Amino acid sequence: MYTPRPEDKFTFGMWTYSNPGRDPFGDTTRAVPNLEFHCRAAGKLAELGAYGVNLHDNDLVPITATPAERDQIVATYRKALNDAGLKVPMATTNMFSHAVFKDGAFTAADPTVRAYALRKAMEGIDLGMELDAKIYVFWGGREGTEVDAGKDLVESVKRYRDAFNFLIGYVKDQGYNIKFALEAKPNEPRGQIFLPTTGAMLGFIQTLDDPDFVGVNPEFAHEQMAGLSFPHAVAQALDAGKLFHIDLNDQAPGRYDQDLRFASVNYKDAFTLVKLLEDNGYSGSKHFDAHAYRTEDEEGVWQFCAGNMRNYLILKEKVAQFNADAEIQALVAELQADVDGVAGLMTYTPDNASALRARSFDIEALGAKGRKLELLDQLTGDLLLGVR
Amino acid sequence: MYTPRPEDKFTFGMWTYSNPGRDPFGDTTRAVPNLEFHCRAAGKLAELGAYGVNLHDNDLVPITATPAERDQIVATYRKALNDAGLKVPMATTNMFSHAVFKDGAFTAADPTVRAYALRKAMEGIDLGMELDAKIYVFWGGREGTEVDAGKDLVESVKRYRDAFNFLIGYVKDQGYNIKFALEAKPNEPRGQIFLPTTGAMLGFIQTLDDPDFVGVNPEFAHEQMAGLSFPHAVAQALDAGKLFHIDLNDQAPGRYDQDLRFASVNYKDAFTLVKLLEDNGYSGSKHFDAHAYRTEDEEGVWQFCAGNMRNYLILKEKVAQFNADAEIQALVAELQADVDGVAGLMTYTPDNASALRARSFDIEALGAKGRKLELLDQLTGDLLLGVR
Amino acid sequence: MYTPRPEDKFTFGMWTYSNPGRDPFGDTTRAVPNLEFHCRAAGKLAELGAYGVNLHDNDLVPITATPAERDQIVATYRKALNDAGLKVPMATTNMFSHAVFKDGAFTAADPTVRAYALRKAMEGIDLGMELDAKIYVFWGGREGTEVDAGKDLVESVKRYRDAFNFLIGYVKDQGYNIKFALEAKPNEPRGQIFLPTTGAMLGFIQTLDDPDFVGVNPEFAHEQMAGLSFPHAVAQALDAGKLFHIDLNDQAPGRYDQDLRFASVNYKDAFTLVKLLEDNGYSGSKHFDAHAYRTEDEEGVWQFCAGNMRNYLILKEKVAQFNADAEIQALVAELQADVDGVAGLMTYTPDNASALRARSFDIEALGAKGRKLELLDQLTGDLLLGVR
Amino acid sequence: MYTPRPEDKFTFGMWTYSNPGRDPFGDTTRAVPNLEFHCRAAGKLAELGAYGVNLHDNDLVPITATPAERDQIVATYRKALNDAGLKVPMATTNMFSHAVFKDGAFTAADPTVRAYALRKAMEGIDLGMELDAKIYVFWGGREGTEVDAGKDLVESVKRYRDAFNFLIGYVKDQGYNIKFALEAKPNEPRGQIFLPTTGAMLGFIQTLDDPDFVGVNPEFAHEQMAGLSFPHAVAQALDAGKLFHIDLNDQAPGRYDQDLRFASVNYKDAFTLVKLLEDNGYSGSKHFDAHAYRTEDEEGVWQFCAGNMRNYLILKEKVAQFNADAEIQALVAELQADVDGVAGLMTYTPDNASALRARSFDIEALGAKGRKLELLDQLTGDLLLGVR
Repeated sequence: MYTPRPEDKFTFGMWTYSNPGRDPFGDTTRAVPNLEFHCRAAGKLAELGAYGVNLHDNDLVPITATPAERDQIVATYRKALNDAGLKVPMATTNMFSHAVFKDGAFTAADPTVRAYALRKAMEGIDLGMELDAKIYVFWGGREGTEVDAGKDLVESVKRYRDAFNFLIGYVKDQGYNIKFALEAKPNEPRGQIFLPTTGAMLGFIQTLDDPDFVGVNPEFAHEQMAGLSFPHAVAQALDAGKLFHIDLNDQAPGRYDQDLRFASVNYKDAFTLVKLLEDNGYSGSKHFDAHAYRTEDEEGVWQFCAGNMRNYLILKEKVAQFNADAEIQALVAELQADVDGVAGLMTYTPDNASALRARSFDIEALGAKGRKLELLDQLTGDLLLGVR
Repeated sequence: MYTPRPEDKFTFGMWTYSNPGRDPFGDTTRAVPNLEFHCRAAGKLAELGAYGVNLHDNDLVPITATPAERDQIVATYRKALNDAGLKVPMATTNMFSHAVFKDGAFTAADPTVRAYALRKAMEGIDLGMELDAKIYVFWGGREGTEVDAGKDLVESVKRYRDAFNFLIGYVKDQGYNIKFALEAKPNEPRGQIFLPTTGAMLGFIQTLDDPDFVGVNPEFAHEQMAGLSFPHAVAQALDAGKLFHIDLNDQAPGRYDQDLRFASVNYKDAFTLVKLLEDNGYSGSKHFDAHAYRTEDEEGVWQFCAGNMRNYLILKEKVAQFNADAEIQALVAELQADVDGVAGLMTYTPDNASALRARSFDIEALGAKGRKLELLDQLTGDLLLGVR
Repeated sequence: MYTPRPEDKFTFGMWTYSNPGRDPFGDTTRAVPNLEFHCRAAGKLAELGAYGVNLHDNDLVPITATPAERDQIVATYRKALNDAGLKVPMATTNMFSHAVFKDGAFTAADPTVRAYALRKAMEGIDLGMELDAKIYVFWGGREGTEVDAGKDLVESVKRYRDAFNFLIGYVKDQGYNIKFALEAKPNEPRGQIFLPTTGAMLGFIQTLDDPDFVGVNPEFAHEQMAGLSFPHAVAQALDAGKLFHIDLNDQAPGRYDQDLRFASVNYKDAFTLVKLLEDNGYSGSKHFDAHAYRTEDEEGVWQFCAGNMRNYLILKEKVAQFNADAEIQALVAELQADVDGVAGLMTYTPDNASALRARSFDIEALGAKGRKLELLDQLTGDLLLGVR
Repeated sequence: MYTPRPEDKFTFGMWTYSNPGRDPFGDTTRAVPNLEFHCRAAGKLAELGAYGVNLHDNDLVPITATPAERDQIVATYRKALNDAGLKVPMATTNMFSHAVFKDGAFTAADPTVRAYALRKAMEGIDLGMELDAKIYVFWGGREGTEVDAGKDLVESVKRYRDAFNFLIGYVKDQGYNIKFALEAKPNEPRGQIFLPTTGAMLGFIQTLDDPDFVGVNPEFAHEQMAGLSFPHAVAQALDAGKLFHIDLNDQAPGRYDQDLRFASVNYKDAFTLVKLLEDNGYSGSKHFDAHAYRTEDEEGVWQFCAGNMRNYLILKEKVAQFNADAEIQALVAELQADVDGVAGLMTYTPDNASALRARSFDIEALGAKGRKLELLDQLTGDLLLGVR
């Protein structure tokens, strides 16, 4: 029942299962990945039930590779993917690792860095197309500041927009069948990152030349870091028709980016999230942007990979239980029942406005009515803990 | 030099200077305000140099007042304002204090509550127009959840939109000369509040029937609570042409809503914010949505009011110093200098794309170049601390 | 199986089930409690399976009561408790609600306030003894600052100590059979509260005249507010023999004090906590210092009370499962196995030091060994979610 | 006036000025340091006015060095220090970088790792003595968990204690003239780190065999990460006579460890801290445990070093101003004036207890009295911003 299959559309970034465990205070604890490892990993991920892998340009092709080396690497890896039956549904550009991006990429104050970032993004998109990616993600990890005095903050937003407008132009001109998905993060590695939340990205997208071309790629841990609700952010994206892709993982709020196994900390928010995706028919990839604890060896990495998918499927079954639970559904229905038959008044017309003005509301009685949310939450918790 | 004048457009909410000091763990420490106090306060605020006061409907008119009582109260207060020479540039609806709103107002699951909220908002807007308000703020303090299972999260966004579309219809139909400004907050008093950041509001606004009619009212403390940068949020709003109003105060991140005196904690962010407003010619009200420490008596409250305005003016002078400082400005200019003459390539044309592709970038050299941000930040700090 | 019984020692503060739902932004949503309600509640709590109630002096006796009124109230309530068969295992002093404490109680800068606080604490202890309390809790909700310049921070610690030394002297002199338990909180209602963590309290206790007399009362939400691990704090208290009492509830990190139903948010930390209490034979009260959502009526309050106890018992059963799970226990044992027989070297003797110096360690091999923590965590999660 | 001199006792960790700018998302931006660089840096730091450098064993001696290599390296560096006139007042052990410590050092579940950690600490102490260090710091960066099920949390505290007891035994046996200082951190690089606050360390120390031998090394950023007040933590340490060393830097709360230039973010807390150190006659090192922004080249690193020291001296002068400001001092004095002559009653004697019981307190009047903290804070802010 909890065995993943390709149709579940579970994907892993090339950088996730291969994370060597380096952190700001420690060296690697696992091998730094090479192409041979990635080719082998493709088979392993397929065996575990994954649908595909996603990649940054430099996960696959070193930033220093010649065109010939690049082509050779891509061909080798494509064969491994084909052999494994894995897709590359999403690709993205690494615009954060190299020192050239230390003060930004699309929003770097230095125009030469911005120019290079555009070029690198074009090449990254080309690579994505070559691998049949359908979604191209942008995470601007270095687009931000520690020293606000060093950048014009309004101008930085304009520069960010200019970059996307350029790349939309490029993609259209090339006739590429790909869409963009923007990923927000509040901080780390910069003190403050521009457009720090999924909501901010949704606002920004509407200022682009072609907003329809661009959606979001919300990440669980990134909203959680700021103590924001990931399900609420995803709900806004769904409402706006902008949930093009999603990054699943886990995280304790108010601290460094942990990228933990999905549903290993916040069971309840993970449940709400899966409910949202399933109830709203989300059909894109479920991408696990996480990595194994630094304490693990390779075997632990595969257990980590399996655990992400298993947890999604466990929660998916819990969602089905929740939706089929008569007592729970009765509580949910009661909460929104239109007892007074006023639902029809909520669209503006002069008549509806008059009707609302004329109406008498017993606000004391409405205020005294219990909402039974303690009970609903307890039943939900019982269900989650498997005692219902 | 630091004496406020009406043209500085400093305003205070009726609920700010009159805050009686109650908190979740303690009773009032100052008198609960009555109309007589507010009339006297108008004179006091004018004397201190304020431009106006802002109000929730129920700051002035009790929720239980009859129409006749309401009219009498409004007339009395309007006279006090006129005598003092104060404006009411902004008004808003209290949709959070009464128990009827305990599970939401515009997004309440109960349709009767939503209907009542719409009616109350119409009446609040009427009151605002009567007092010549130009901006109508919406802060949905109860629009959110502790128990996500109790609300359809996507449907909640739709309900939120329906309410604004209704009220836009109402205002247009009445021919009212007023604009809406939406105020975000991440949490408190709800576990999670819908549309929790200024960015989320900017995204939401674009889904309304008439987005041009609606902007944002960012609040310093509300972004700070989530550890987000208030200046960055305001920059996005300025870029989008949506900064219709602003709430100034201060706050330590990661905790309860403190509503401290502006620029009493985060001097540096306050400086960056004032720089943003002044450099971008923001001409709206500078509204202090804060309150005096609970330790203060009435004398302390007026010192608090004076302090907010004084701090803005101190920082405004620091901004002028910063902008006139040759060493600082040289650093800022150097950071964005177009050394390689590439600025013209950043708009998409096939030729520009080809030029970028053809160009050689020495990314090692670019990555090694120091950005002098430690120096710039130190000089800024010296300036802020008055030792430059 | 999940039905609470008195021997489970579940207790509720008088202020918890009777919380009327007021918050910084809203009025009450439930009735403000009176003595009649509390007497009735005693029966209800007993019926639900509780062991006792805890109280602040002013939960029962108004701060303005005359001695005669006080005695009448105490007698009435004691009868209700006796009728219900409930104990009062813990009592405490309210030194935060009245305006007199607005800038502190034991650490108030004003000596008159400090003197009054001591007097009130003596009277509160007398009341506790009258009700047979065995633990007297001190939560210094107002002991702190927003303006550090207003207090000598080192002197404030001394004043805090002076107060406890005074009260230890008082209790000993009276021959009272009671112990003190200090409760920490990082902030709210003060900007910063002195001795903000359970750890800080443990350090402070050792500076008192009679440290053995004083332990801690850690609260789940208070450590969580600062993003600290509650189980880790409790473990330190257990190690030090200082876990005299415990406050259970739940909370999202990095925000206002939520006091949610125990194990309604952080299932995993709640499980770890219950494991710690059960495995270490904690025999004191399990006190739920929480309150029902503001959305609830009285029925919802009793569901809330029942839910707290049920959740503890559900998790207690999960702990038994965890301890009996052979696969899990094998992983746990393997993690700490003394493969190299070095455990005996870890006490200092010159010989042991020499042996360690002489020994060869293959740190590369040790570093490469997987710890299987992904697997252990997944199995724990499966168990918690009821799918194991 | 702001020029640092050796008598100011400003020190820098070898790992601070030499930080190459690697972070979890990016490669180095500055050269990885070698011995030649450190020798040159000694001269540079002396020139800037520093008093000394502090070091982890492996900052100087690679973990793989042979004894002969070690001695050669130490001799070379010692000569450079002597030439520069720099001291090494503090040394410490790196028990976090190597993979062997991935699940802890003194608290590792694996006894072999604990044994190795003890050995490494003994050798590190030997190195410290060789360099005439007077303080030996312990920061247990890997002592913690992501998976609490993998460790016995109470046993972990015992293991931690066993390690310190061992090392105290070792140091005494060797006759070393050195004291220990324990450094707390709430999280990062572990999900939760044991003994996460300075307060927790103060509690722990009292459980050691010889508590007098051990104090704390509080770090600004580490308390700030959890939103705790660094000045309050330092005040508790000063009160307990345990402030053996201090780590100065800066940090935004609720996020990854930033290690920013001292007094570059939280001017006000930095001022309070300097006031605390100066007013209480702290005479130890003022160690800057920070690093330059990743955007900087070597020139920027030296500007960063100079900035840390300059900021301390700027704030030290502000403290002198504050202490000499008659209006401010009158406010401070008024806050704590013993108007009612009760200060003598605050030591327990039966007579004092009776006197307090007999006394009449006008708590309404006390509660209504304004504390003038808005004014005091405004004057302090004016002073900090240089406009007073």
